Amino acid sequence: MTPTTMRASVLRGIHDIVLEERPVPAPGPREVLVQVTSVGTCGSDAHYYEEGRIGSFVVQQPLILGHEAGGVVVACGSGVSRHTPGQRVAIEPGVPCFVCPQCRSGRYNLCPDMRFFATPPIDGAFCEYVAVHEEFAYPVPDTISEDAAGLLEPLSVGVWACRKGRVGPGSRVLITGAGPIGLVAAQTARAFGATEVVVTDVNARRLSLAAELAATSTIDVRGTSLTEFGYEPDVLLECSGVPSAAVEAIRTVTRAGRVVLIGMGGDELALPLSHVQNFEIELTGTFRYANTWPAAIALAAAGSVDLDRLVTHRFGLAEVEQALTVSARDETAVKAVVRPQE
Amino acid sequence: MTPTTMRASVLRGIHDIVLEERPVPAPGPREVLVQVTSVGTCGSDAHYYEEGRIGSFVVQQPLILGHEAGGVVVACGSGVSRHTPGQRVAIEPGVPCFVCPQCRSGRYNLCPDMRFFATPPIDGAFCEYVAVHEEFAYPVPDTISEDAAGLLEPLSVGVWACRKGRVGPGSRVLITGAGPIGLVAAQTARAFGATEVVVTDVNARRLSLAAELAATSTIDVRGTSLTEFGYEPDVLLECSGVPSAAVEAIRTVTRAGRVVLIGMGGDELALPLSHVQNFEIELTGTFRYANTWPAAIALAAAGSVDLDRLVTHRFGLAEVEQALTVSARDETAVKAVVRPQE
Amino acid sequence: MTPTTMRASVLRGIHDIVLEERPVPAPGPREVLVQVTSVGTCGSDAHYYEEGRIGSFVVQQPLILGHEAGGVVVACGSGVSRHTPGQRVAIEPGVPCFVCPQCRSGRYNLCPDMRFFATPPIDGAFCEYVAVHEEFAYPVPDTISEDAAGLLEPLSVGVWACRKGRVGPGSRVLITGAGPIGLVAAQTARAFGATEVVVTDVNARRLSLAAELAATSTIDVRGTSLTEFGYEPDVLLECSGVPSAAVEAIRTVTRAGRVVLIGMGGDELALPLSHVQNFEIELTGTFRYANTWPAAIALAAAGSVDLDRLVTHRFGLAEVEQALTVSARDETAVKAVVRPQE
Amino acid sequence: MTPTTMRASVLRGIHDIVLEERPVPAPGPREVLVQVTSVGTCGSDAHYYEEGRIGSFVVQQPLILGHEAGGVVVACGSGVSRHTPGQRVAIEPGVPCFVCPQCRSGRYNLCPDMRFFATPPIDGAFCEYVAVHEEFAYPVPDTISEDAAGLLEPLSVGVWACRKGRVGPGSRVLITGAGPIGLVAAQTARAFGATEVVVTDVNARRLSLAAELAATSTIDVRGTSLTEFGYEPDVLLECSGVPSAAVEAIRTVTRAGRVVLIGMGGDELALPLSHVQNFEIELTGTFRYANTWPAAIALAAAGSVDLDRLVTHRFGLAEVEQALTVSARDETAVKAVVRPQE
Repeated sequence: MTPTTMRASVLRGIHDIVLEERPVPAPGPREVLVQVTSVGTCGSDAHYYEEGRIGSFVVQQPLILGHEAGGVVVACGSGVSRHTPGQRVAIEPGVPCFVCPQCRSGRYNLCPDMRFFATPPIDGAFCEYVAVHEEFAYPVPDTISEDAAGLLEPLSVGVWACRKGRVGPGSRVLITGAGPIGLVAAQTARAFGATEVVVTDVNARRLSLAAELAATSTIDVRGTSLTEFGYEPDVLLECSGVPSAAVEAIRTVTRAGRVVLIGMGGDELALPLSHVQNFEIELTGTFRYANTWPAAIALAAAGSVDLDRLVTHRFGLAEVEQALTVSARDETAVKAVVRPQE
Repeated sequence: MTPTTMRASVLRGIHDIVLEERPVPAPGPREVLVQVTSVGTCGSDAHYYEEGRIGSFVVQQPLILGHEAGGVVVACGSGVSRHTPGQRVAIEPGVPCFVCPQCRSGRYNLCPDMRFFATPPIDGAFCEYVAVHEEFAYPVPDTISEDAAGLLEPLSVGVWACRKGRVGPGSRVLITGAGPIGLVAAQTARAFGATEVVVTDVNARRLSLAAELAATSTIDVRGTSLTEFGYEPDVLLECSGVPSAAVEAIRTVTRAGRVVLIGMGGDELALPLSHVQNFEIELTGTFRYANTWPAAIALAAAGSVDLDRLVTHRFGLAEVEQALTVSARDETAVKAVVRPQE
Repeated sequence: MTPTTMRASVLRGIHDIVLEERPVPAPGPREVLVQVTSVGTCGSDAHYYEEGRIGSFVVQQPLILGHEAGGVVVACGSGVSRHTPGQRVAIEPGVPCFVCPQCRSGRYNLCPDMRFFATPPIDGAFCEYVAVHEEFAYPVPDTISEDAAGLLEPLSVGVWACRKGRVGPGSRVLITGAGPIGLVAAQTARAFGATEVVVTDVNARRLSLAAELAATSTIDVRGTSLTEFGYEPDVLLECSGVPSAAVEAIRTVTRAGRVVLIGMGGDELALPLSHVQNFEIELTGTFRYANTWPAAIALAAAGSVDLDRLVTHRFGLAEVEQALTVSARDETAVKAVVRPQE
Repeated sequence: MTPTTMRASVLRGIHDIVLEERPVPAPGPREVLVQVTSVGTCGSDAHYYEEGRIGSFVVQQPLILGHEAGGVVVACGSGVSRHTPGQRVAIEPGVPCFVCPQCRSGRYNLCPDMRFFATPPIDGAFCEYVAVHEEFAYPVPDTISEDAAGLLEPLSVGVWACRKGRVGPGSRVLITGAGPIGLVAAQTARAFGATEVVVTDVNARRLSLAAELAATSTIDVRGTSLTEFGYEPDVLLECSGVPSAAVEAIRTVTRAGRVVLIGMGGDELALPLSHVQNFEIELTGTFRYANTWPAAIALAAAGSVDLDRLVTHRFGLAEVEQALTVSARDETAVKAVVRPQE
């Protein structure tokens, strides 16, 4: 039976996370209550922990972080028709208003009234239970592990980026940055049919993992300039968030190529205008994702991407601070996950 | 040194193919002379052999059949800059006018002035040498065999069909017909990221090969009706050319699904209108392909598709008639190739 | 002050419409109550009146017909933020579930749980008041008349068809059928930039109106066969619902052209397969529309289309039967509207 | 009869244009000889005249400028089938290689081997006769004037920009810069169905012309900041070439909006990264155009755009220097044309 209270990891201020006892949420109409089994940590979680804000989103009251979550349905609110208790699910962490022009056009990620996990003032998933709309709790097959269920969220970032960049069979892709998103993007690009995937970074260990998982070639840009390397990709998936790296990479993109800016870093990019014009390069950025979980689940279930391989560290709910700091301080870290039930 | 005459297999009339001595063609400006090493046989070749025509294309003078060809460059015409003798190449067998509105819009397959191998009155490749525009002779890496170089042509049919059907990561695809095109389309769909590929046929051997190569499920429609099977694909790639099969398959396609009619068979299809309207299904047909060789080569070189596995019979240039009849008469045949140099 | 009861025109069975006293609906959360000022009559309304069903939709209990409605907001339910009483609005008559995969992909017209006016068992707008979600009641400027506000619904059909057919600047369009939808489609095609719009029909009066409103050329197909006429359109918008006319028209479409089947008529169309394949024609059908009101309002407000010109007859709420029969029996009729407040 | 020599206006160096006697070109295979009747002057012509170069294109030998040309066919080379002498034509001034991957994909404007009028070392049209491929000499109806035939070239720039920006019915467009390209783009946007077109500039006269021709609203940005104005366009067509104006304009674009950079100015643009990402704005530049003349002719012939209204000055072939300087020095100038036969 579902308890009435639960443990939750709460961010009270910069560098101040405590474990609190909170009421278990009651699932509303068409909501399911999910017992959280694994939650990935993300750069944005660490950013809120370190800075208390991301841009205009400011932590002004205690906030539960974590938005890469999977778990098991344990109770259903009224009107739920797709789920029964016991169903393993992956959670899409943002629920839009559904009815505004953006939502109705299929771009619900751009909904101005999005309620997104771990984005002030909406609580996230570093806790034992969350309630979520049943259409945002996707059944996953047993071939997808508990950690992988949560990591379908970063995979969705990769799927969205590859769609925006129109990666397809035979595409030649450049990925700048071999962090968790770059590593997922590289695998996703291969799953989309890309036959050349070049990944850059300054961390040899991450490049090695990129090569193991998906890259057909890697460049350590401490030693080799991208320009010298001579690769002219059809698609650039910028995952480093380093403006100078982004600009250098844009200059390599071929005629009619696409640039997708996924990494965040600063508010200005010195766009090489004449290259963009003369080659008619199409450039865009990504903001979360829309309609990606079904494809992400299909790819993970088919073995086209390996999410478990990204998990280097696991922590309990009392260790969220360690989870959030390990990536920044530990060269060997790729993805740390939190296991609320352990 | 290139000889001045060559052996060519010439269709003189219905059921009348003879080996003749012909002059070796001289490569024109920007043309290369290719020594043909392997040529796949196609249903259209067999059709000309059996009927002397396909629709409005009538064999009115002796014709060399064969359009699925690979070989080696042995001489270059004036202005050739991409090739030197010795280069292994795959041949795209249709050269358009390049300047009409269709060509200039990137749809050169719809050029009214296309000159296509083995389509009256243009000779094909069942001979020792052919001359072709250098941009239609694509270098292939050593990982692509001689037979596979020729079979990039049917692979191009599959690539084109998957593009038309917008097959992508996570797509659920139905392929009706497990002949050479169906088998290639199934593999291509997987290479495009499809995670469910159901293939139907009435030939258990071919279904078994489909399952081995790419299908996630197969249906022998002698025993199980497609409707009963209950699959609701996003995309139907119709490769059987059997109108009743096509219609039954169209009825299974899901909302906003796509139907691509690749197989030919009769001039009328009893389109289930209200299904097409109520589900807003998009339907189109394919006519050859455009801009497919680069992707086809990339997929074959990456091992995403296996073309060699389709080759069940090999013949010399003197045995073209056997090559053309084996598929029709031999249940075990999938693809017969002709090796002009053997 | 809003009264508690209203007059409603109720279909009780085939050829059986009566005026009844009904409670005025109470607007639910985010719903507005709209005083209906004008409702166009549609072929589907007439069909329910004549046959009691359309395909699988059967009138099994008393039903209010009418779905082309405009009016004035008179009351707001809880949570309404976009409207205040007095706002003139056009009503989009179908409200989907919002959360299913079709809705979330921007294709809410394909939502399996759509609740659509005048489609059993959902009541329509031949009555004094209707309640509707505020996001489906669009403010209209004063330049759009009361009748035109309702006729934004058929204009939406035209907008949707032109989007599906990718009508654009310089397009050459063929429209088969000059009924209300054909006349709207012709105007919409021009507003989308089409520079040639040929309209066919067997009714000289309607062809004359087509020429007045939008057609650059008309064909009376009683006297001139479309084939003889020699026009090769880029886009066919089939609005006649006559299968033989549709087939003849499809045969005229040029290479890479589009066919949009809007008219309904029978369940089978003898698709000219080789034409579709050889020319790679793209064919689809339309089922209502999605995200069309903003564009429809903009076009009507800009004067790019003239909806008032279509109105040939006006009736009161007690005369719905006359309104539904006039189009069928009166050669001079184009669009009859019902004015519930008169 | 065609003479053997002609007058040509030749740029010999910076600020050094002379009238020379040159041989009349002989039309090659599939080329027509066109007697030039009107040639618009473009900013790029003026730039070569003032600076002797544009980026990496350097005038190293005498060059005939002018690339916005119309005229009359006076002779046909071998193989010409579309034209006979006397045909009035508009000239598309760039002929690509036709066979490279860019050409074959329909993006011939990105062909690395493009031969483009008035781009070193290819001569342009400030002369009495030019030879051009018959498929790049488009018949124009009598409703298109001699000047307008030449100005189909800048109209093509507008058509291409609107295609890239996916301007359509109901679009809300912002155009920065009311020079000749901005004025053409504004008209084109309306012809594409845009219902709001806001144009900015610092020249009141040009803004007034924009309002007369196409703008639904204009902003003199000397007095009103664009940000204050509060317009949130779907599409930005940047025609000013002023980086600061471009950046401010990009910041106003709405969710999922498009930015097309047409104006050239400097090699770097300080892209507002978080706006592009958070709103998933798509940005690209234009490089000339492809497949635009048919649509441009259709729009001009239908009266959807008015090109003649742009012509403020006319000059003879001996006055090319005046034509090139008038725009820069005369506030009242919009487009100066050169009439080689006068």
